[in-house]
Parts: sequence; C-alpha cells; structure tokens
Amino acid sequence: MPSMDRRSLLLASAGMPLTLAAAATPAAAPAEPAPAPLPAPPVTEILARFVLETTSEAIPEAVRREATRSLLNWVGVAIGGSRHETLDVAVSALAPFAGPPQAGLLGRRERFDVMNSAFLNGVASHIFDYDDTHLKTIIHPAGPVAAAILALAELQPVGGRDFLTALVLGIETECRIGNAVYPNHYDAGWHITGTAGVFGAAAAAGRLMGLSHRQMVWALGLAASQPVGLRESFGSMNKSFNPGRAAANGLFAAILASKNFTSSDQMIEARRGWANTVSTKQDYAEITGGLGQRWEAALNTYKPFACGIVMHPAIDAAIQLRAEPGFAAGAIERIDLKVHPLVLELTGKTAPQAGLEGKFSIYHAVAAALIEGAAGEKQFSDRAVRDPAIVALRGKVQPVVDASIKAEQVDMTIRFADGRSLHKFIEHAIGSLEAPMSDQDLERKFADLADGVIPADQARRAIELCWGVDGLASAAAIARGGAVA
Amino acid sequence: MPSMDRRSLLLASAGMPLTLAAAATPAAAPAEPAPAPLPAPPVTEILARFVLETTSEAIPEAVRREATRSLLNWVGVAIGGSRHETLDVAVSALAPFAGPPQAGLLGRRERFDVMNSAFLNGVASHIFDYDDTHLKTIIHPAGPVAAAILALAELQPVGGRDFLTALVLGIETECRIGNAVYPNHYDAGWHITGTAGVFGAAAAAGRLMGLSHRQMVWALGLAASQPVGLRESFGSMNKSFNPGRAAANGLFAAILASKNFTSSDQMIEARRGWANTVSTKQDYAEITGGLGQRWEAALNTYKPFACGIVMHPAIDAAIQLRAEPGFAAGAIERIDLKVHPLVLELTGKTAPQAGLEGKFSIYHAVAAALIEGAAGEKQFSDRAVRDPAIVALRGKVQPVVDASIKAEQVDMTIRFADGRSLHKFIEHAIGSLEAPMSDQDLERKFADLADGVIPADQARRAIELCWGVDGLASAAAIARGGAVA
Repeated sequence: MPSMDRRSLLLASAGMPLTLAAAATPAAAPAEPAPAPLPAPPVTEILARFVLETTSEAIPEAVRREATRSLLNWVGVAIGGSRHETLDVAVSALAPFAGPPQAGLLGRRERFDVMNSAFLNGVASHIFDYDDTHLKTIIHPAGPVAAAILALAELQPVGGRDFLTALVLGIETECRIGNAVYPNHYDAGWHITGTAGVFGAAAAAGRLMGLSHRQMVWALGLAASQPVGLRESFGSMNKSFNPGRAAANGLFAAILASKNFTSSDQMIEARRGWANTVSTKQDYAEITGGLGQRWEAALNTYKPFACGIVMHPAIDAAIQLRAEPGFAAGAIERIDLKVHPLVLELTGKTAPQAGLEGKFSIYHAVAAALIEGAAGEKQFSDRAVRDPAIVALRGKVQPVVDASIKAEQVDMTIRFADGRSLHKFIEHAIGSLEAPMSDQDLERKFADLADGVIPADQARRAIELCWGVDGLASAAAIARGGAVA
Repeated sequence: MPSMDRRSLLLASAGMPLTLAAAATPAAAPAEPAPAPLPAPPVTEILARFVLETTSEAIPEAVRREATRSLLNWVGVAIGGSRHETLDVAVSALAPFAGPPQAGLLGRRERFDVMNSAFLNGVASHIFDYDDTHLKTIIHPAGPVAAAILALAELQPVGGRDFLTALVLGIETECRIGNAVYPNHYDAGWHITGTAGVFGAAAAAGRLMGLSHRQMVWALGLAASQPVGLRESFGSMNKSFNPGRAAANGLFAAILASKNFTSSDQMIEARRGWANTVSTKQDYAEITGGLGQRWEAALNTYKPFACGIVMHPAIDAAIQLRAEPGFAAGAIERIDLKVHPLVLELTGKTAPQAGLEGKFSIYHAVAAALIEGAAGEKQFSDRAVRDPAIVALRGKVQPVVDASIKAEQVDMTIRFADGRSLHKFIEHAIGSLEAPMSDQDLERKFADLADGVIPADQARRAIELCWGVDGLASAAAIARGGAVA
C-alpha cells in the first residue's frame, strides 16, 4: 500500500477512537498543525443539565409569554403552509413508509408516526418563510422545536405547562448554540435553522421523554451528528425541508438516546466536535453566559408581512396611511418613498409576473398594501400581482435611495389628484423588537393564514388553545385543534 | 431594529432566495469578501447523468467483480454486527415508530420499513469497524449504498444485475465526491463515510427507483442537505450510527425527489453548496475526471483482521509463521518485531484488560494470532485478552521501532527454547491493494462473522447468493438469505 501516507494509515485504523489515540499519542497526526490548547468549557454537559434541571417556575413569566406567542405564530404558519404543493408532495412520498398514526398534521387530515409528523409540520411552517425569527442569528427557532414536541405530545401525556417549558428550553438551546457560531457558520453556507435547530428539537423532546443527564448528553451528540441544510437550497422546496428534517432528526436522536444509544460526551465542544467542524468561530460564552438569567427565547420576533424584512417599513407606512381620513386609493397620483439602499438592491422588480416575484418588488408590495390593507400570503399570490388595480397603482410607486434612511425606516408621501398629500415616517417597522406585533396582530395573522384551510371557528378555538397552553391538561389538544378532523 | 446590520437584514428577508438575490445584486452581501470567480463545473448534473445513463454493460467485468466482493464482505460484517448491543438498542428504540415490515435485517428476525431497515443494516455493518475501505479517502463505501438498495430490493422488483450496477454507481458517486474534498474535509472533523455516503445511497436508490434526470439532481441536492457524522463520535455507538443514517438519508432524499420534491440544481458545486460549505478543498476534477473510464469502485479493500491497519503486517507475519513446519507456540522464547513508529504510537498497550483494548495492543494481537491463527472479532473479545496462553505469550512480544520499516511492512523473528528461529518479512500486508484478500479469504471472514448468528449452511448459501448476485432474478434473495427466518 505505497500510496497510503501516515495520516491515511492512522485514520484507516479499524475501531480506532481517534480522540483516544490523539490523547495517548500527541504525535499521532503529524501532518496537521498541532491543535491549539483547548479552553472549551464542557458545554454539552452544561446544556444537558440546564435543559433537564430548569424548572417551569424558574422561567420568567415574560419569557413564557413570548414562547406562547412563538407557538401561536408557529401553529398559524404551519396551518397556512399545510396545503401547499410542497406538503402534498412530501405527504404522498412518505405515506407508504410511515409508521403508526401517532400524530397529526396541522391543517390536514393525515396522521403519521411522530418522526414523520414532526418532519411534515416542520416543513409546512417554513414554506412561506413567514415564521418567527431570532434576529441575532436569523434562526427560525420555533419550527424544529415545536414540530418535534407537538408530535411527541400526541404519543405520550404532556401537560401544557411542561410543553411550554420544553419549548422555551429547546429554543434557548438552539439559539445559544447558534450564537456561538454565528455569523461564520451561516456565512460558510449552512442554513442555521436546520443545523442549530436539531439541537433544540433533541433537547425539548429529550426533556419531555424524561432522559437522564447522560442520555441527554448523548441526544445532543446524536443531534450534532445530523446537521441539516445548505443556503444553496434557498428558493426550492429544500429550504422548508430543513427545519422539518431538523425536527425529525432531533426526535430521532432523543428516541435513540432514551434507550442508551451512546455518543461522545463532548460532541459540541471537542476538538473534532460540532462547533469546530461547522464553523471557524466558537464563542462558548454565548452558550454558557447567563444561562437561566438572560433568555434568547424572549428575543423572538414575528413577521407581519409575508416578504423580506427590507420591505416591511414601506408596507407598514402604506397600511397606516390607508387608514387615515381622506385616503382614497383611486385618487392617488404618485407615491414617493425614501428608502434604504438595500430596498432597491433586493426588491427592485418593477413588473412581477408571479406571486413569488412579488416578494421581490417594492412596487408591488406598496401597491398591494395600499389597495388591500395587508401584505400576507394572499397579497403575494399570482392573483395579487395580476390584479388590475394593484398593477395600475404599482406604476405610481417612486422609490428613491436616501443615505439618511436606515434599513428599519422609510419615508412615504402619497400625493392625490386633488393636490392633497399624506405623509408617514416609520422609525421602527412593525414586527421589529422595538415595535413588536401585538397579540391582536398575531391573531389576525393566524386567522388570515388559516382562512381557506380550516373553518374560522376552528381557527378561533386553535388560537385560544395556543394562548392557554400553559394551563392545558394535554398539549395534544393543540395538535388536534389545528388538524382537520 | 438598531442591532440589525446590513447582512442580518439581508438574510432575514423572508422568502429571499439568496442565490437569486446574489446573482441579481452583486453588492448584496457587502460585509463579506467578494467570492472568487467560480469555475466549478456542473458536477451535480454531471453525476446525475452518469448515474442514470451508465449501462450495466459499460461497467468493466473487473469492476463488477470487485463490487461483488464488496457486497459479500458487507453482508458478512452486517450479519456479524447484527447481534451487538448497538443493534439491540436501536431496534428497540425505533420499533414503536416504524412503518410496514417492508425489509428485513441481516442476521435478525425483525422487519421494518425500508428507511429504518437501511438505517439498521448500515449501523450493523460498521459496528466492528471491519467493513471495506476506500484507502484514498478512508470512506467505507459499501455501507451507506448497500444498506439503502438492499432494503429497496425488498420493496420493488430489483434484478441482481441492476442491483450490482446500482451498487457500483453509488460507490463511484460517494468516493468521487469524497476524493474532491479529502483530506481537508476529514481533517476538519467530518466522518466522511457519513457525509459522502449519503450521496452514494441517494444515487443508487434513485437509479433503481427510475428517477428522471431532474429528480436525480434533486435527490443529490437533498442528500447534500443531510451530511452525517463527526469524528468526535468515534469510540461510541454514534460511529456506526453514521453510515446507517447516511443510508436512510439517501433513501429519504431519493423517495422525496421521486415525487418532485425540489432542490437546487447545483447543490454540490454552488457558491453556498455542499463542497464549499463542508471543505476548504474542492477538486472537481476528482468527480469528473475519467468518469466511466477509471473506477474508484475497483479500489475497494477489505480488512482481514478486526483491528487497526497498522497491526495488519505483524498479524499477517504471525499467521504465516504459525503455519511453518516446526512452529510450536508453547516453545516460543521471544518474538522480535521491527515495526513502523505508528505501531507503538497507536497500539502500544502491553496489558489490555478488555476486548476493545486488545485492538490497541500489538502485544496481544501478535500473541493471539500465533495461538489461534486468526485475528477476527473473536480474537479481540474479552475472552481472548484474558486467555492465559495468550496473556503468557504477549509478554514475549518485543517490538522495536525501525526507521527503515514502512507502515505496510514488518520484520518478525520468533526464537524458540531449543535455539531454532523462524523469520518473516512482510512487504505488503494481506488486505492491501497489492496483496488483496482472496475470494476464499473473504468467504472465511464471512463464515467467521456469521458463526453463532446464523447456521453454517445458511451462511454458505448467503455467500453463494452474493457471488451470484449478477445473475439473480431478484436481489431481495440476498436480504432474505441473510436474515433469520
């Protein structure tokens, strides 16, 4: 075997735990630069302990409230996405292989085993890219975690209070791990929702399954072995695949660990572990700092509009001006916008032909918001971009880049044929941390997404179930309440 | 949202296909260095075409023969691992969630849906780290591919000839992708069998499922989204998890793609695709060069001994000397070995207490080989390392490092009490490309692994089924022949 070098020989060694070999023989991998001394704290152990030992009472009410809002938003977007072609394809592909009908699908009639159910609900919730966002990492936190534990709640008894606690701890786990490697990890090409999300799903599911500390460590290790998603998939069904598969993978990890399927005890922080392998940045203080004191789960945000955040200030302004006295869409002569440069860079399409293209058109978004008073999925449909009134009005939208306008701002002036005008300056667009969507806004968004999927009274009851999650005897009521009977 | 920088805003944009945005607006991600010009050939498309269009007849007989040997070796190690605690744990964990009993497990009685069956057979085959090795990349090629398509062969009609062709093309796909990123990818921390293996499984399964070209491209894209395994897991059950999960993930990808679940068309080579994300090296000529002419699948090797390759020359020498006239184990006074430095670095344990430790003891390995004439799993059991005769003899093994000895060599001299001695110099250890295991060696290995798991006559028939795969009316016969009825 003359072609085998020293490294190859080393690595080819059957049954050779490399870490053991490396520890015993520092010179074992001479072709590589010597690893730097490792000050990494045992974050896998620390997270396992945190996830298992944090009591419901130790989570501040404001954090629990934000997680409840996250849940409501997530159930809504999952119902909204449930009838999309993406779900139809996935359901028909997987049905022949699925296990017992243990858990339902939001917005649909089918029932699957918990792992397939988690996958499908996770996919559905990301199809419109309208789910929640942890702005520090661009993780969409609820999807992987909620999809996993909602399925689990149909398999075993899970009280609402425990469910909400697991949701908080799962979100906390994935966002803190995400913080530790962001932005390098994301810049490298990973879809961080799928790579960090699998930890959140494993943590939350593992807690509800009553894993021991050691088992939780292994669940996180098996989660680390299954990162999901590359940014290159954006624009295809593969994007929403990622949070769904993260949910299923996390559940798979917890289920195996619950029977003592072993992993490393330092899978996140070891020299050849997750953080070093998937990122050039590893800031473990992001994982351990203020654990149980400051809560990433409290920083979740929700999109009021079904499109890129860069257009949100203009849409916000349009909807507010539409509500002012004297507004008349038919009398508009022109709409002047001062916008941040990114708006025209990213959303400069003047004549979108399909709904998806509408998401990249500031002209369409403003016109649709002025005509229809909203910017949900319906306003980014094929129907909307071809609506004659919207098409006519989009030609009157005149955006100009203004260096003094920040990304979260817009300055809009609407001039009417009779010479009157309306003006609005947006400092922080609705949906930002500074101007969060109200509970009522979230309810309206939910109802809009559920419209046409489940009856309005069912949607209303599902909203109430989400608000009341903390007091539910069984969290499975939410799954049943959101499914089609 | 003052904390949001320009990048965050960009990335947070809902529904924003980043590639589209980047193509339309080169300045869209200004905080990053400009990406280098991309000369990457469309390797995802090229591989899809290769996998779909290569006929059985276009694969040279020698390559098909080597793949047949790979199959035989793989079925043997899967049967051998099938009763290990690792499999017991996984089977009991997954049974409550599994789908219809579509496919069996080698060496066991249970039947699962194809994805769980692929997972479990893939795990079983890697438990002893005794499976096949593509020495250029240290990929264990058969596991992910064979596990996926053997399960599939029980679900749909698959002729033996098509099965073998799919096995070749799957192995070719994973090894070429592995070549493109090795060694940087492996050095970073990835368990390359699990990360490249998922492509092999998707390719082979997709071919047998009759995917269209576009669907095959998507299957590879969905495979790219699901890499499995970190080197930190070595030494735990999580190591054998990796090829199993790669098999299941590849199958999952092909099944979804078969119903038109979409992905990117350039998932391997795109700027934010797989190769750039998981490796600092991307040598696409390794994928495209001589495709259909030179065959990585012909370079597969098999381990004659159930331990690290560094000890193989010494074991080879011991077994050969044991067969010489005048050999008498009881009369040995000392055994002198001149070895490559890695041997003592990696396998210097003088007094192993457990079977696994025996794999890191040149003293034990040589003594066991001299006493028992073999170095299979049985010789690395707890029983073997405590055997009084082996324990006594290992104290007489005297290895010294000799700079003139290459890693694939050993120089062994056995001195007996009566003053006689035997000497052997090994130039290329058995199992290397230069001294491959013979077909008979492979059969003996198979029978040894199957011993105690399935009856000897069943093992014999299973061996014949593997040798005759090319002519089988149904490849499912191999799955049935290796399972417990």
